[in-house]
This record gives sequence, C-alpha cells and structure tokens, in this order.
Amino acid sequence: MKMDLTPARGTRDLLPSTVAVRDHVLARITEVYRRYGYQRIETPALENIERLQGGQGGENQKLIYQVLRRGLEPTVADGTPLSDLVDLGLRFDLTVPLSRFYGANRATLPQPFRSFQFGPVWRAERPAKGRYRQFYQCDIDVLGEPSVLAEVELIEATSAALTAAGLSGTTVRVSDRRFLSALAEQCGVPADGWDRLFITLDKLDKIGWDKVRAELTDRVGIDEATAGRLQATITGLQGLDAAKLTDQLSTTLPGLGDDVLTDLTTTVDGLAALPGLTWEFDPTLVRGMGYYTGQIFEVTHPASGGSVAGGGRYDRLVGRFLGTDVPACGFSIGFERIVDLLASAPRREAVAVLYETDTPVPEVLTIARELRQGDRAVSPVRRSGKFGAQLTRLEEWGFTSFVHVKPGETGLERVLGDKES
Amino acid sequence: MKMDLTPARGTRDLLPSTVAVRDHVLARITEVYRRYGYQRIETPALENIERLQGGQGGENQKLIYQVLRRGLEPTVADGTPLSDLVDLGLRFDLTVPLSRFYGANRATLPQPFRSFQFGPVWRAERPAKGRYRQFYQCDIDVLGEPSVLAEVELIEATSAALTAAGLSGTTVRVSDRRFLSALAEQCGVPADGWDRLFITLDKLDKIGWDKVRAELTDRVGIDEATAGRLQATITGLQGLDAAKLTDQLSTTLPGLGDDVLTDLTTTVDGLAALPGLTWEFDPTLVRGMGYYTGQIFEVTHPASGGSVAGGGRYDRLVGRFLGTDVPACGFSIGFERIVDLLASAPRREAVAVLYETDTPVPEVLTIARELRQGDRAVSPVRRSGKFGAQLTRLEEWGFTSFVHVKPGETGLERVLGDKES
Repeated sequence: MKMDLTPARGTRDLLPSTVAVRDHVLARITEVYRRYGYQRIETPALENIERLQGGQGGENQKLIYQVLRRGLEPTVADGTPLSDLVDLGLRFDLTVPLSRFYGANRATLPQPFRSFQFGPVWRAERPAKGRYRQFYQCDIDVLGEPSVLAEVELIEATSAALTAAGLSGTTVRVSDRRFLSALAEQCGVPADGWDRLFITLDKLDKIGWDKVRAELTDRVGIDEATAGRLQATITGLQGLDAAKLTDQLSTTLPGLGDDVLTDLTTTVDGLAALPGLTWEFDPTLVRGMGYYTGQIFEVTHPASGGSVAGGGRYDRLVGRFLGTDVPACGFSIGFERIVDLLASAPRREAVAVLYETDTPVPEVLTIARELRQGDRAVSPVRRSGKFGAQLTRLEEWGFTSFVHVKPGETGLERVLGDKES
Repeated sequence: MKMDLTPARGTRDLLPSTVAVRDHVLARITEVYRRYGYQRIETPALENIERLQGGQGGENQKLIYQVLRRGLEPTVADGTPLSDLVDLGLRFDLTVPLSRFYGANRATLPQPFRSFQFGPVWRAERPAKGRYRQFYQCDIDVLGEPSVLAEVELIEATSAALTAAGLSGTTVRVSDRRFLSALAEQCGVPADGWDRLFITLDKLDKIGWDKVRAELTDRVGIDEATAGRLQATITGLQGLDAAKLTDQLSTTLPGLGDDVLTDLTTTVDGLAALPGLTWEFDPTLVRGMGYYTGQIFEVTHPASGGSVAGGGRYDRLVGRFLGTDVPACGFSIGFERIVDLLASAPRREAVAVLYETDTPVPEVLTIARELRQGDRAVSPVRRSGKFGAQLTRLEEWGFTSFVHVKPGETGLERVLGDKES
C-alpha cells in the first residue's frame, strides 16, 4: 500500500540543504545575542487553552490549534460544547508563553532578564505561498528594565544579528504608541475611531496619501479638514534627523507628554550614535499586536515586501499573568523571511568513500575513520551503476571529493567535478 | 488577577542554566554526526492522524495528543464519534515521520541517506519524576544501505557522540531480532508465546534467572525442560569475545541462518576493531518497538538505570508508506537522560555594566559595546539596593565580572567573587 506522503496541510518538510541555511543563520544570530547577554530559554509547545485565549493575542487567538482532552468517551454526548472537549492548545507566539514563564520563574532569574527564544509556533491560517502553519520565531526580550535603554539595546542587538546573518541594507523604523494617541487626539479624531485610523495610516507606504485620505473620510469618518491636519503633521515629521525631530515633535504636537518626548529623544540619539545603522522615525508605523504600550519598531529590507523584524514595549502583558506589571520590551526576527532572503550556507568539505560491495566492512570503515579529520564529513557510499554517472550524483548530493575503495586497495582522494577523474 | 503560572501538566519550562547544558551537549553531538556525514532534516510536529495511528508505533499510539479540526460548530451533534472531530496529531517519535519524509523526498536525497534529527515529541503519559509529556529525541538513521556497514557505522558514530558529549564508561550491547526468533524456535517455544518470552527475557538484568524461569513457566507457559535449555543457551553466549561468539552461535544454534551469523560476525568484528569501545553480545536484549527486523542495539551507562541510547534495523517501515521496502537502520540517543547525567556546561565570561540611573543611555551602551570583545557576554544592569548585595546577586546570576558606571565616569573592570571589590 502506498500512503499519501505529503506533510499535513500548510506544513512542510525541511530538506538538508534548507536546514543547513537555517542552522547557519541561527548560529550567527545566536552568537550575537549571547554577546549581548541574552540567555536562551524554552517553554513547552502546549499551553493550557485558557491562557492562550486570555485576550492578549488579538486575531491570532482565532487561529489556535486546540488539543483534545485525554480519556474521553469515544462518542460525544448530545449538546456537548466543543470547548468542553479541549484543555490544551499549541502556542501561537513566544511572547504570551514568555510572560507566563517570567511570572513563574522571576525569583531565580537575573534582573533585568534578557531572554532569547527560538522555536516553532502554530497558527491555523489559510495556507498561502510562503506562509506556513508551523513556523519559527526568533525573539529577544528584556524584562524588568523600565527605561528605553532596553529599546536601544534591542535595536542594536537585532541589527547586529541581522548583519551577522548576512542581511545588509536594512532600515530601522521607530515610533511610539503614545505618539500615535497624541497625534489622533490633537488632530481631533474621536477616541472610538483611533483603531481604524491607525489601521489606515499603516497602509500609507502601500497605497499613498490620496487613498489614505479617502479612507480617512469614508471609513474612519473624519472630516476633510482633520484629514488635512493629519497629513500635514505626519509629512512634517518624516525624514528628520535626531536633532530636528525633537524640535518638530514639540512644536507640532504640544500635547505629547514630556516622558514620551524624552524617551524618543534618547532612543533616536542612541540610534544616531550607532555606527553603520540606518534608522528613521516613521509616524505611520503601527504594529498589529494590541499589547504594545510604548515605543514600537520594525526593520525593513528592500528585498522583502514586509518587515524582517518587529517589536516594541509591552509593560502590561506580564501583569496579566503575575498580577503585578513588569516593564518589558521585545524584538522578534522574522526568521522564515530572512532565511528566504539568504539563499545559501557556507559549503562544507564532504568526502565519499566509494566502496565496491566485496570490500570487507571493517576495511571501509577504517578508511573512512582515517579520512575523517578536522571538520570535514566522511561517509561510505556503495558503488553502483556507471562510474561517471555515480560521480555526477555524488556531486549533486553535495560531496566535494571521493576515494574509490576495493578489497585491499584504496585509491587516491579525488576532487569531484574534476574532469580528469 | 494572578493566573496559575505552572506549565501544562507533565511539561516544563527550561531555565537558562538547563538550556546551556542542553545546547552544549547538542553542539558536541551535532559536530560528531556531521563529521560522519549525517544531514539534519526537520519534519512538522503535526502529522495527519491516520499516519500516526498506522500501526507502527506500538503502545505509543495510545498516547497521541489529538488535534481538533478547525471550523467545527461550537456544539457537537448527538452521537458524533470523537474521531470525526480530529484530523491531526502531535508526533510521538521521529522514526514514523522520517519514514514518511523519506518516501516523499527520496528522489532528491543521497543514496544512502544519512539523516540526523533533533526535536520534540509528545506522549500523553502519566507524569512521573524525570518523565515528561514533551521531550526531545536525537536520532541518526541510514536509509538505503542493506549491509551491516550501517549498523557498525551507527554504533561508531553514536559512541563517538556520547564521548564528545562527555559521557564515558558506556557499554554497547548488541543482538539481533532474528537471533531471538531462532533461539525461541530451537528451544521449542510455540510461536504464539514469543512476544511474552521476549518481554520476560528482557527483564533478566533486573530480576535474575530464578524469577525469569518462574515467569517462563507461569506466564509464558513453557515447561521446565525448555526453560532450562533457554537458560543454558543464553548463559553460554554471554561474555564471549568476537572470535568465540561466532563458533558458539553456530554450535548451539544450528538453526540460525547463515546471513544472520555473517551479519553478527561482521558487526562484532567491526566493533572489536574500534579503539576505546566496550561492547558485548547480549542475548537477552529485546528492544520494545515492533518494527525492528534485524540487529538491535543499546548503550548503557553505570549511572543510568535504563539505556542511554538504542536502535536497530527496520527494513519494512518505510515500505508501509512508500509501497516498496527500503533498508533502514537507526540509533537514537536518550537526550533527556544524558543531559541529566551531565550536570554542567563550560562557564562563559559575562560582564555586567552596572550603571547609576542618571547615567545617559548612550554612555552606558557605548561602554557595553567597547567591553563586548571576543566571545564574552556584556549587558547593562541598573544599580539598585546595597552595593555588596547586588554584587552577590550578579554572581548568582552567572556574571563573572562587572564595571561600575556613573555619569562621565567608568570604573575598572573587576572580577566578581573577589573580596577586595
């Protein structure tokens, strides 16, 4: 019998060449994060379902894979609510589990705690090209640091990690949720229209001012004059360097709190001092998650449609678990996106010990052992078919050289692809 | 509100110190496996439920976490079988998914294919000390190699990996499923009693011959004379070196196939030729999984009650997916067991930049950047509480030195634990 061999819908197998790129990228990122003092932790893939559905996850909560209780009767009684059958779910991100983890382990963790997480998350999204139902997230978070030192450090570390992974030419975009609120208030947008306002502003990059203004009047329900004030304020804040940004903010947004202004000044001054970093204040940056409370940031790259990393401050999420708020800020690298941008891993020497079937096993393995020096990979491969065709296959499979072994006789090591051989 | 913060029942959070040991062990194992040419692959955690329940998993199939279909009505209709609500399950091992993976991707994979897998599996077992519902498996497999070259190489690579991970003093135990069948047949045990016979023999190490013989007559249902023949045959085969084992096997078990004898001779000769390896033929070794078809092996260590690694040949498992049998052999390291035996990871230099709150953020981050040289971790920590008490905490958290920073003033780097400081 032949079964259907494809992975479950929306998931995929990772072949050796793909894993090699992923492992290479992850190793480079890990080195950088460790130098900044981030410590890797792990939480279980399964969490109690009520924690996942606790209201922090926004749209993602609807996409949770739910796990059946164990020991249920084989037939379900009439009228049983589906929710009675479920007690666990697969995590949809790493931030909600981190908040639970921090609440549970705070007493033994350093203060502040620098967390590094890398692991799969699951979302039952409609499958699409490049979008998978199991994908990896790669997060760093600082818990317990109230100042924007956390923000600047996270941006510095993430940029260094992306560069180490081989991604250059990135731009860091920075804003603040509190700036967005002040902007909306000052321009006279009623509070119940803010969410729709922010969703519309977020699209400016893609649809331009004409369509944004149309949406502002048609869907957000603000008048032409207000929409005009918004456009003027936002346009006046774009493309400013660190020195001019603070002046412009305090002039055009007198309602902006001093703390917000100080934080933004500190952050952009910190970023301006970083060698090789390209940054900008982006007054239309919003970020989807509902739990952000302060500065938010994103990294973009010309080759990627969306962002390659994103994050922000979420000072009230841990409090939902712990009962006491804990200042927290995180930055997540879009791991799947960046490995798609970085096509290859460094090539590794790989030697095939090509043995004729009548060669005694200990002889083959001894030769392999002798060749297995340093970092190179050495593995026996049985001789079969035409010699030249097998050499071509060895090369396709990633071998870089071979040794031909017959009983009592070992050939010289030859480089593959060398037409002399 | 304070929520329950403990991880889901039977699962656990991994703290930084634990992850450091695990990462260290995994890195050592990975280096060795790569040198033998094993290539890491990944399969999704979720598999279609009918594949997991396909009969290869023995007892483990009963322990599958089952995942609810998406888009179901909130209330279940009367008489709905529970199985109608489920379409996916979490994998309970890495061998069943590997077989599906190999079937799906064979055309692009090297022949033979050397697979390395490391990843979590899930089993809804009764929680107990040291037994978790999510745990990691660490497997290497050779697919497409019919000869025992695969067996000897797997044993060599696994032993080298365990040594590299820091586990010395292990013993490799070898047997063959076909030997067990021949033994049972020759001693006159009826075929329907073989499974119970093997389960009983497997316990010899723990319960001794008196209890094994009692079980053989009471539960397996064989007579005293047959039990005596079994004991004599087994005892005669224990503790033999490679040269004597072959003679003894052919003398006492003339019904043993020539192919089995040749394979065993090749394997033990191969193992005898390996420097630093301790091995023995263990006629009572059984291994639980139903899919083994040839040689089986286990690694034991005096400090561990059970085995620290196990594996064997399973030539018919891939065929259940592909429709064509593919020779296959694998060896799995009991990752959770060995990290429990290996308490510590190498210590790493970690510097705290202890800053007074009024120090400008860019100043703190610049000092951290300058100290961040080579492999060491450098991270800012806010000054708080009594100085001495904070230094003690820094040391507890794993910092090895610190620098005290005030506005415009940076102290010298001092080693922690130095009473002078």
